[in-house]
Amino acid sequence: MKAVLAFDIGGTKLAVGVVNDAGEVLAEAIEATGDAVSAESVVDALLRLADDVVSRAGLRDRLAGAGVSFGGPVDFPRGTTVTCHHLPGWEGFALRQVVQEQTGLLTVIDNDANAAALGEATFGAAQGCPHVLYLTVSTGIGGGVIVDGRIHRGANSMAGEIGHTLVAPDGPLCSCGRRGCLEAVAAGPSIARAAREALDAGEASSLAAIPRAELTAKQVAEAAPTDALAARIMDQAGEYLGLAIAGAVNLLNPNVVVIGGGVSGAGEPLFRPLREAVKRHAVPETSRDLRILPGGLGPRSALLGAAAMALAEATS
Amino acid sequence: MKAVLAFDIGGTKLAVGVVNDAGEVLAEAIEATGDAVSAESVVDALLRLADDVVSRAGLRDRLAGAGVSFGGPVDFPRGTTVTCHHLPGWEGFALRQVVQEQTGLLTVIDNDANAAALGEATFGAAQGCPHVLYLTVSTGIGGGVIVDGRIHRGANSMAGEIGHTLVAPDGPLCSCGRRGCLEAVAAGPSIARAAREALDAGEASSLAAIPRAELTAKQVAEAAPTDALAARIMDQAGEYLGLAIAGAVNLLNPNVVVIGGGVSGAGEPLFRPLREAVKRHAVPETSRDLRILPGGLGPRSALLGAAAMALAEATS
Repeated sequence: MKAVLAFDIGGTKLAVGVVNDAGEVLAEAIEATGDAVSAESVVDALLRLADDVVSRAGLRDRLAGAGVSFGGPVDFPRGTTVTCHHLPGWEGFALRQVVQEQTGLLTVIDNDANAAALGEATFGAAQGCPHVLYLTVSTGIGGGVIVDGRIHRGANSMAGEIGHTLVAPDGPLCSCGRRGCLEAVAAGPSIARAAREALDAGEASSLAAIPRAELTAKQVAEAAPTDALAARIMDQAGEYLGLAIAGAVNLLNPNVVVIGGGVSGAGEPLFRPLREAVKRHAVPETSRDLRILPGGLGPRSALLGAAAMALAEATS
Repeated sequence: MKAVLAFDIGGTKLAVGVVNDAGEVLAEAIEATGDAVSAESVVDALLRLADDVVSRAGLRDRLAGAGVSFGGPVDFPRGTTVTCHHLPGWEGFALRQVVQEQTGLLTVIDNDANAAALGEATFGAAQGCPHVLYLTVSTGIGGGVIVDGRIHRGANSMAGEIGHTLVAPDGPLCSCGRRGCLEAVAAGPSIARAAREALDAGEASSLAAIPRAELTAKQVAEAAPTDALAARIMDQAGEYLGLAIAGAVNLLNPNVVVIGGGVSGAGEPLFRPLREAVKRHAVPETSRDLRILPGGLGPRSALLGAAAMALAEATS
């Protein structure tokens, strides 16, 4: 059995685990990201957790490497972070080097969507599939591309940005400054906003009982089986996701598309229109044997992905 | 020096060449596809040409393998053709096996867009680039994806179908039966059709001097520098190409996008709006260092691509 140390630096939580090559988490510690004010303070917190976790797993001398999933873009060849989606102070931070020096373990870092993609391909819904398209749909939409079992990073470590596919010309403003990106019409906040706008316009719905400001995508998804407005909003989000995925499927012809992130918990109200849209918009031969599945690793996808990266590095 | 035998089975011509590992064509023979009525008769014609070409090159005993570019989808693992875009009788034909048995050379086959993509990455405009997106824009629009220097074929040997990205919702009917695909609005026949329709609607243009039925995309491109209608039509085609390419660039983050095929000869009237659209629609970080170039191999792209496939196979 081989085991590695895995780190997940997310917007709301820091997680550290010792994971073996069967994808079993032998020990784990989680802490709120909280008031971490610098990259250094986050790394200090992670190393403290790591110390605890490694002791508990009793494997200090047998770890084969370390993997770090980071909630923002990284410069893969340099091993540095570019910027963090959630926290200040991460521009150009030498994350790989710092973790490697502090742990004494061969370290690999990548962004959370790439990590989760490899996690799902190694231990999750896409296990055993060489070609995988992964999307995470939550407050934003990220993606990861697995080709021949490996993360495809591209020329600037920026591959996988499916969230910024144009799907709604002249649509709502996106966080990236353009209009009509997939993220601007199908991420969690967009689903909640669409519901709020329809309610404000006077549409009847069971969602009207929820205070507008507290309305979430989760509530819209939960109402969809019995509420026409909620169903229509989930249909629209699924259609947009399916449209962007169809283009990616035409280009990449993956074995499987895995959809993770909070919004993927919506289940059939999202997956049914999404699958129909992919069938409608993709070349039949590229989607013939395609499976479209919810992620199998839940909130641990990035952590297990970090472990998968470290395991792949250790055996390469 | 290593040399291989390369075949190009196209809609209008059959070509055979002996090509060395510097991409030099040592001997070449071309014949019109003409009245070839079956896969067998095409292969017979190719083998006749090959005999001649190999004799002339004087390398019969030193060939390291054979590569075949085919004008239609192939089943790569089986080495069979699925169907031909131009000729009947190619369903499930064991092309790799037949060529391998008849030539006695280790043989690899692939569709012409994949072959041309590898050709451009090995000997052409994308030489030395690990990650390449290739499009061929002529009577249709095909594509090929090079990842880490190798053709990405995907789950069903169908990757690269960028021509069927939806770019114009409710747009013109495509050859695939759907509406608004890139191919339906930016391939050569679509450019010619857009010009004909505008002329029929009474728009003033120097193109009015050409008999409607004879109007080609080439003529529209040539008129664009001095004709407002022609310029607008090329702008529109370039915008659609750029939109689809931007989505692919976000997903794949290639080093370079290479555009081959007859329509790519249009030059700046096509490439200027295309580059502007990519800049506008792609995530800045994915397109920051991106180059968008016309193909460097012209009508020999598929033949040199077939040679590149054979050379890659011979050295693997």
